[in-house]
Amino acid sequence: MDSETFPVNPSLPSWLLVLRTADPDRVLWVHEEACSQDLLREYFMNLENALACPVVQVPMRGGERLKTWDAVNELLRLFQGHGLTRSSLVVTTGGGAMSDALGFAASIWKRGMRTLHVPTTPLAAVDAAWGGKTGINWGGSKNQVGTFAEPLAVHIDARWMQTLGERDFHAGLAEAAKHALLDATAMRSFQAPLPEWPCAGVEEHNAWTSWFEASAGVKKRIVELDPHEHGVRTTLNLGHTVAHALEASTATTQCAWLHGEAVALGLHFALHEALNPVLGGGDAMSAEDTEHAQWMGQWLKEWIPLPKGPWPDAASLWTFMTEDKKNVGDEVRDMAWRGVGKVVGPVSWKRDTFEATWETFVRSWNDS
Amino acid sequence: MDSETFPVNPSLPSWLLVLRTADPDRVLWVHEEACSQDLLREYFMNLENALACPVVQVPMRGGERLKTWDAVNELLRLFQGHGLTRSSLVVTTGGGAMSDALGFAASIWKRGMRTLHVPTTPLAAVDAAWGGKTGINWGGSKNQVGTFAEPLAVHIDARWMQTLGERDFHAGLAEAAKHALLDATAMRSFQAPLPEWPCAGVEEHNAWTSWFEASAGVKKRIVELDPHEHGVRTTLNLGHTVAHALEASTATTQCAWLHGEAVALGLHFALHEALNPVLGGGDAMSAEDTEHAQWMGQWLKEWIPLPKGPWPDAASLWTFMTEDKKNVGDEVRDMAWRGVGKVVGPVSWKRDTFEATWETFVRSWNDS
Repeated sequence: MDSETFPVNPSLPSWLLVLRTADPDRVLWVHEEACSQDLLREYFMNLENALACPVVQVPMRGGERLKTWDAVNELLRLFQGHGLTRSSLVVTTGGGAMSDALGFAASIWKRGMRTLHVPTTPLAAVDAAWGGKTGINWGGSKNQVGTFAEPLAVHIDARWMQTLGERDFHAGLAEAAKHALLDATAMRSFQAPLPEWPCAGVEEHNAWTSWFEASAGVKKRIVELDPHEHGVRTTLNLGHTVAHALEASTATTQCAWLHGEAVALGLHFALHEALNPVLGGGDAMSAEDTEHAQWMGQWLKEWIPLPKGPWPDAASLWTFMTEDKKNVGDEVRDMAWRGVGKVVGPVSWKRDTFEATWETFVRSWNDS
Repeated sequence: MDSETFPVNPSLPSWLLVLRTADPDRVLWVHEEACSQDLLREYFMNLENALACPVVQVPMRGGERLKTWDAVNELLRLFQGHGLTRSSLVVTTGGGAMSDALGFAASIWKRGMRTLHVPTTPLAAVDAAWGGKTGINWGGSKNQVGTFAEPLAVHIDARWMQTLGERDFHAGLAEAAKHALLDATAMRSFQAPLPEWPCAGVEEHNAWTSWFEASAGVKKRIVELDPHEHGVRTTLNLGHTVAHALEASTATTQCAWLHGEAVALGLHFALHEALNPVLGGGDAMSAEDTEHAQWMGQWLKEWIPLPKGPWPDAASLWTFMTEDKKNVGDEVRDMAWRGVGKVVGPVSWKRDTFEATWETFVRSWNDS
């Protein structure tokens, strides 16, 4: 980069400073095709102004269709077609599937190009875009193939989420709720009043952006401590054992649950178990944490509407739970919640304990 | 691992200790199908005795056919079929193409399994198996897609090379010659007398094994200093600019050069340029280094027979050289040799200088 032409400009937003400092020879900006045209223009201008290199803009339809072996081959063709080198950089503006797939393709092109993500969904903003887990689905299993490749930065801007469907927006808040359950600081900022969604004003957007940033901070800290999931990163699986089973068991039905909706119900179940403990380990819950559990249950019900229709029964969930790659023997590994920042695990479900607990949970849900 | 059943046994060879300490849940041992049956039996017994986990043995034909997008998909199917998890480990016994392709597939399966390589060619033993560059060919270019994923260890045993064709064996020595040119210690052990090849005795095999280990040590040290090739690792490209052009320009002819043969000629050319310098930079060569250059020229001629038939002319080589991904503008980047351990670069060839130097080189070769 020519330092005369592009002096360091500390007034640049930090993600643009990161990009400029990375000094790429070319930037490929892949963005979800269904985005606000105004925002696309604004961002393209910002990229062009901040960078000395060519910026190529490629619209693309996101979603799970990108997360296949063949789709990655097509992404590599795209990289080749645009002459990307190991000094190039890929910016994504999309949901979690886009950062997963583009992140994977970028990490293997010439043994690794750098990436930067601008998430357009709450799920990507607080979770998927962070932590460097890239991946695709393979052989019928989710994220079987991938790499660990940390993006240079994740830039959150809630305005991108205005064009997202309401169901996707609300479902994505579940991972933020999980983060609040894992971290006392995050719980405090989580409990501040939130503007309505969708919103139009600058202040409201800034409030949402800050709220997402605070939640993303939990993921960021945990991943820095344990990038390859040998220890504390496993606490991020809270609520996910049941969630993955729910997703898998409804995937082929007319009423497939979104990941975030499944996580919301997984968290409801974890809170129920915490208030009526059957899994071993951990101290008795404090009065304060009992209150947090009840408050969070209400928050989840208010912000994340769940799909109508009957839920899978305990036996069917159990079948899917036994396929999880974390299991040992015929018990199912899970994480138990015992208070804000107090997650116990791995704990093991036996079949009969799980089925009895699930049935009690469903009864108490229907009664409430 | 049950420490009662498998106490640490320091009398184990170090590669088996490494495997045991890695405590995998399963080992997939992929080996070149054309190997000595006696050695295969010996190694399988050693693996079974050293490890508490199942060891699965899979014969496979090596070579460039493994280094494709579709072949990697097949390797992933193999991993799935054998139930490999993120705690499993892949051992390869084969040439550089096998460690490149299996290393890549392992590095993306469940975001990374560990590997250990037992090379069966001199090229893999001193070069390809080391340093964690995995990769496949893609879109007509070599190693366009891959990862950096260091193997746990590389175990060298020259007995595996007995079943290798003579041409492959001799060609593979070129990378060892390159290492001697890069490192004074390696040059000293390189200059010790070598047993004939092929050989049958234990002592001769041990002598070759030690010789390969000393050479591999150069690669190991350089890669530790600069794993991602931002600095000193580029010196490993000595002789390779011309070599890659030679390989590419003969690839589709009846007389394709092996990589090692092309590197041998690339080194001859680098030594010629060192003795008749035209590239800028570096001090004048010492008398000792001039002697080293002459000695190495003789050694290369003695140990690495080159293919018969006319060599590509300067203009045709230049065309292929300009396609190298390291180039800037219309000059070709290269490394220049100025003595043992004294490599200067990147230096730039201009077309006319290169063509004149190549023609002088060819004339002096024919005269000698």
